[in-house]
Formats: sequence, C-alpha cells, structure tokens
Amino acid sequence: MIGRLNHVAIAVRDIGAASALYRDTLGAEVSAPEPLPEHGVTVVFITLPNTKIELLEPLGADSPIARFLDRNPDGGIHHICYEVADILAAREKLLESGARVLGSGEPKIGAHGKPVLFLHPKDFNGTLVELEQA
Amino acid sequence: MIGRLNHVAIAVRDIGAASALYRDTLGAEVSAPEPLPEHGVTVVFITLPNTKIELLEPLGADSPIARFLDRNPDGGIHHICYEVADILAAREKLLESGARVLGSGEPKIGAHGKPVLFLHPKDFNGTLVELEQA
Repeated sequence: MIGRLNHVAIAVRDIGAASALYRDTLGAEVSAPEPLPEHGVTVVFITLPNTKIELLEPLGADSPIARFLDRNPDGGIHHICYEVADILAAREKLLESGARVLGSGEPKIGAHGKPVLFLHPKDFNGTLVELEQA
Repeated sequence: MIGRLNHVAIAVRDIGAASALYRDTLGAEVSAPEPLPEHGVTVVFITLPNTKIELLEPLGADSPIARFLDRNPDGGIHHICYEVADILAAREKLLESGARVLGSGEPKIGAHGKPVLFLHPKDFNGTLVELEQA
C-alpha cells in the first residue's frame, strides 16, 4: 500500500537558523520559507536526490508545532509522510485493521495541495504518520 | 554535501509486531529480522521505492535503543541517515562549523558495512543525524 517516502518533517524553533544549517553546513538545496497559515506553520523544503526534508516552524497561536516544541525544546522529527495511490482505499484498509485516523477521519488538503490523513502515533510505534495521495 | 536520505530509523519494542504492521497493514516490503550484536540492535529493513525504513529493537544489555525506549515507551523515530561522498571531508567541514561528532569522532563501520558518524542532536534541531559514506 505505502509507496515513496514523501518527506520527513522536522519541527524547529528558528527556521532561519535551521535553513542556514542545512544550506551552509550540510550543503543541501534549501527553499525560501513559505508561510502556510491554514496549517499553522512556516515551511522550508530541503530537496535531497531521493526525497524531501521539511522544516516546520510554528505560525500563529494554535500551531500544532508549538505544542510539540513545548515537549521537545530543541525541536525534533515531527512526522514522516508516505505516499499512497488512493487515500480512501488506504483509510478503509487501516480502519479495518484497527488503526486510528486522527481528526474527523476525512482527508484534508495538505501542504502540497493533495489529500492527506494523519494516523495515531500509538498505533505506529510512537511515530506520527502522514499519508498523502500521490 | 549531504546526498540521498539513506534511511529513517524507528525504535520499536517488539520488532515482530512492528514488522507485521508494516507488512500486513501498510503493505510494504519487509525483510526478516537480522541481529546485529555489535550494534546492540536487531534490525528489519523496509524497502520503499526511494529509501528505507529501519526498525530497531534493542539487543543485549547495553543497547542504545533500550535507553531511547525508556524515554519513549511507545517507540519513535530514533535517527535519520544522510549519505555523503567522503565521510572524512564531511567531518572536517562539520567540525569547522562547530558541530559536534558523537563518540571518538572516528568513523565506525555501520550496519551496512560502510563508515558512519553520528552528529549531536543539539546541533541539528533535536534530531540525531547519522552520516554514511555512500
């Protein structure tokens, strides 16, 4: 069912400093910061040859990343995103197996303009998993 | 400097259950468990089209994964591994920039038989970063 690893998302306090680290110290290709108010984050995309890293900085009072940073003051890996061909078929199979889908259970349009779902970390080895329809 | 994302490593309590989850529920290609006593882990490789996920279960009394699971009882993402062309050149550049290399600072032979280094999470947004010479 799962296909490519679409991205690894890393929550950071200071996206300017984190971008500079990846660009200057690690020598990676780093985008300009992009505010996504509807997702409560500012995002920077780091393009690697085979996948992406996304740096997420909290934006606005209700950002889910702000709460994560309260628990992880240095930042840390927030979630991983796997691609699926059909998000509704994927959801069906997951619910049948007893896995929990977060929120309303309906796919939302994610940061890349494609339908996404988030799965409960307790059902996936403590890892927040995003599924994105490829 | 950094190239491909070689793998994302997820620490798990029960590698049999975690393997079944990725194979049966997520429909991924999952290897048989492989004990690596010199690294203090049993590992399962999950092959995605563009990269790998590695499930790590503690093996032996001194496993670094055991301590991680004490702090993260459900498991969680333990580290991410980036490929570099020349690990000694990478180390030189990192040390010049003030980043800290863990342990003796000398590359060790990692789980794939290639030289690896680990970088201090406090210098990389709370993320444990492994570099592997490709």
